[in-house]
Amino acid sequence: MTIRLSRRAERLTSSLIRDILQITQRPGVISFAGGLPAAEVMPPLDFEGLADDYRQYGPSEGEPALRSLIAQNLSTLGMDCSVERVLVTSGSQQGIDLVGKLFVDEGAKVLLEAPTYLATIQALGVYGAEFKGLPLAADGIDPDDLRRAIAYRRPAFVYLIPTFQNPSGFCYTDEIRRAVAKVLDETDIPLVEDDPYRDLVYRPVDRTPICTYLERAPWVYLGSFSKITAPGLRVGYLASSPSLFSGLVRLKQSSDLHTNRIGQAWLARFLGSAGFDEHMARMIRIYGERRDAMQAALERHFEELAEWRAPAGGLFFWLRLTRECDTLAALHAALTRDVAFMPGDPFFPAPALRYSALRLNFSHAAPENIERGVALIAEILGEFAK
Amino acid sequence: MTIRLSRRAERLTSSLIRDILQITQRPGVISFAGGLPAAEVMPPLDFEGLADDYRQYGPSEGEPALRSLIAQNLSTLGMDCSVERVLVTSGSQQGIDLVGKLFVDEGAKVLLEAPTYLATIQALGVYGAEFKGLPLAADGIDPDDLRRAIAYRRPAFVYLIPTFQNPSGFCYTDEIRRAVAKVLDETDIPLVEDDPYRDLVYRPVDRTPICTYLERAPWVYLGSFSKITAPGLRVGYLASSPSLFSGLVRLKQSSDLHTNRIGQAWLARFLGSAGFDEHMARMIRIYGERRDAMQAALERHFEELAEWRAPAGGLFFWLRLTRECDTLAALHAALTRDVAFMPGDPFFPAPALRYSALRLNFSHAAPENIERGVALIAEILGEFAK
Repeated sequence: MTIRLSRRAERLTSSLIRDILQITQRPGVISFAGGLPAAEVMPPLDFEGLADDYRQYGPSEGEPALRSLIAQNLSTLGMDCSVERVLVTSGSQQGIDLVGKLFVDEGAKVLLEAPTYLATIQALGVYGAEFKGLPLAADGIDPDDLRRAIAYRRPAFVYLIPTFQNPSGFCYTDEIRRAVAKVLDETDIPLVEDDPYRDLVYRPVDRTPICTYLERAPWVYLGSFSKITAPGLRVGYLASSPSLFSGLVRLKQSSDLHTNRIGQAWLARFLGSAGFDEHMARMIRIYGERRDAMQAALERHFEELAEWRAPAGGLFFWLRLTRECDTLAALHAALTRDVAFMPGDPFFPAPALRYSALRLNFSHAAPENIERGVALIAEILGEFAK
Repeated sequence: MTIRLSRRAERLTSSLIRDILQITQRPGVISFAGGLPAAEVMPPLDFEGLADDYRQYGPSEGEPALRSLIAQNLSTLGMDCSVERVLVTSGSQQGIDLVGKLFVDEGAKVLLEAPTYLATIQALGVYGAEFKGLPLAADGIDPDDLRRAIAYRRPAFVYLIPTFQNPSGFCYTDEIRRAVAKVLDETDIPLVEDDPYRDLVYRPVDRTPICTYLERAPWVYLGSFSKITAPGLRVGYLASSPSLFSGLVRLKQSSDLHTNRIGQAWLARFLGSAGFDEHMARMIRIYGERRDAMQAALERHFEELAEWRAPAGGLFFWLRLTRECDTLAALHAALTRDVAFMPGDPFFPAPALRYSALRLNFSHAAPENIERGVALIAEILGEFAK
């Protein structure tokens, strides 16, 4: 018997990240694979006094107190966004899914960075998106590349992660941010700007959202609380230009009615408390130390093997290997020696030009394991590089 | 400027239920419109000792403890379903959305009851489903109708709510449950069985899921905790036959990674506690009293205006009006007099034969308001009936 599924379902491939994360949760494994906050850095959750008020069904847009804090925060970034255009989502991943639902018909073209966030490739691919990857350099994409690709492909939208990008850690310069906005305004192509790492900053750089520079092109801005608080809560948000908002809210409603209210209520209280700034300062100090530890370890073990930049923020080092390497085979070998990384391949949207690379997360492993893990990975890669 | 959205997005219509629920949250309104649990019946939420363990990202399938309790419960219903085929969802609404993602391409046919749950019409419609409504009687759909519709339409799947159906409150007889299963087995058409009201039972009736009778046809069974605990938690679940499960998990992952863990952890503890049975007994007693109060009020005020059955379970009375009536206009009049109901129209999938009807919820209004609200609605409908 054959069951007729949607083309969407037939397009599903097994998720590498999912499989790897399961393996790396084995005790004793030093994992640089995920993008997980460190347990010792996450704030304690305290629901005292909140729980009973949020048992009932709630509004699809989200809790007013949380939306209001988000809108205030976006205003400080220069975004033209009132509270009426903030939608709380079940994690930032849902924002990506809603964008797919809103824009993507079978065969719709989407421009994005190469490499880019692999779960975006997966989530938009489910709707039948066809991708064109724009080569990403340390200072951003090339605005002329973008202009040419728009002219040639007429994409449904452009998806970018301009700040502390996943997987690369790269951060667009102010000049490129403005130039990208100009191209989008001239062509009226919507921008989906994914910005989950914004607040994890270890060295001052420009982080102005590209959305704030747009004068004409529609936009959706995706934000997350997972990286700075507790991802288990599954609370993220989006904001958008006026023309897109009501469609996004209705798609949110048909997806899951609304986001869990207890998580929203806790976040509204925590973000508005004195403890929040203290928590952020501590998180940034600890992650900054781990970043430095990884940079030092890489300098010791990867000089010959790879090129990289110490990221100004975010959670990742991106190593471009100097020799070609079957990084997936290397990962399998690494797992037998209780260390894990993310191979670079799945971050490249097909059919993009790929290069051998890996992504190393520095927030989750204890500092004393960073040197040991990096040394081990260098040794294994040395065996696999051609 | 025109933004190119997906056909999916262009299909969005304003959601009546959403608009009505907003109005009915005005203080002083007696609302029979929603399907909301009563605040005074919901269990208190207590996260003591749970919170910090569930801050990190979790498994897409859900928390093992909760999945295991769900699997045990499904086994007692006679369902052949191991814990490996239980997926925790962000409310039962997400289960419906995932089913749409899995099965529905543009123009796919879906058979469902007429009337049926309006948010299902909305959620599947977003994916381009075309509906064929099967007339629903008090003992279920007609299995011969089903057989003919399958032969003629070759649907992607059949969606049914056999137990305490929304909006009708009807409950399929055992004979019809078995006959429906036989037709599905003979034709290999998947069944999506939505069962959120199962545990709200005021009079003993057969409630065996139709899925348990299937020998060959694939199935997805959707369950909810919203009606018996606290909908604000947004935790529901699905179980499925083996061939469909991995696709559903991967679609869940690309939708929101996983369901919020705090809600899952609380539910696992509460469902496994002695307090749970006590809570259910109290909830059923209170809702049963409200059901009886509404039945008495209807007998006093609706004898001439409508036909109905006192439901054996669930949350709703469904009134089939004896004269044609513009129930939407009547609702607007009702709202000016601070009372609300759901007009029947949006529960009919287009292009189905409709009849004038309303849905009245009896769980949410305080008993002393039921008589007053029902009397007022009868008065207003008398003015609007032709």
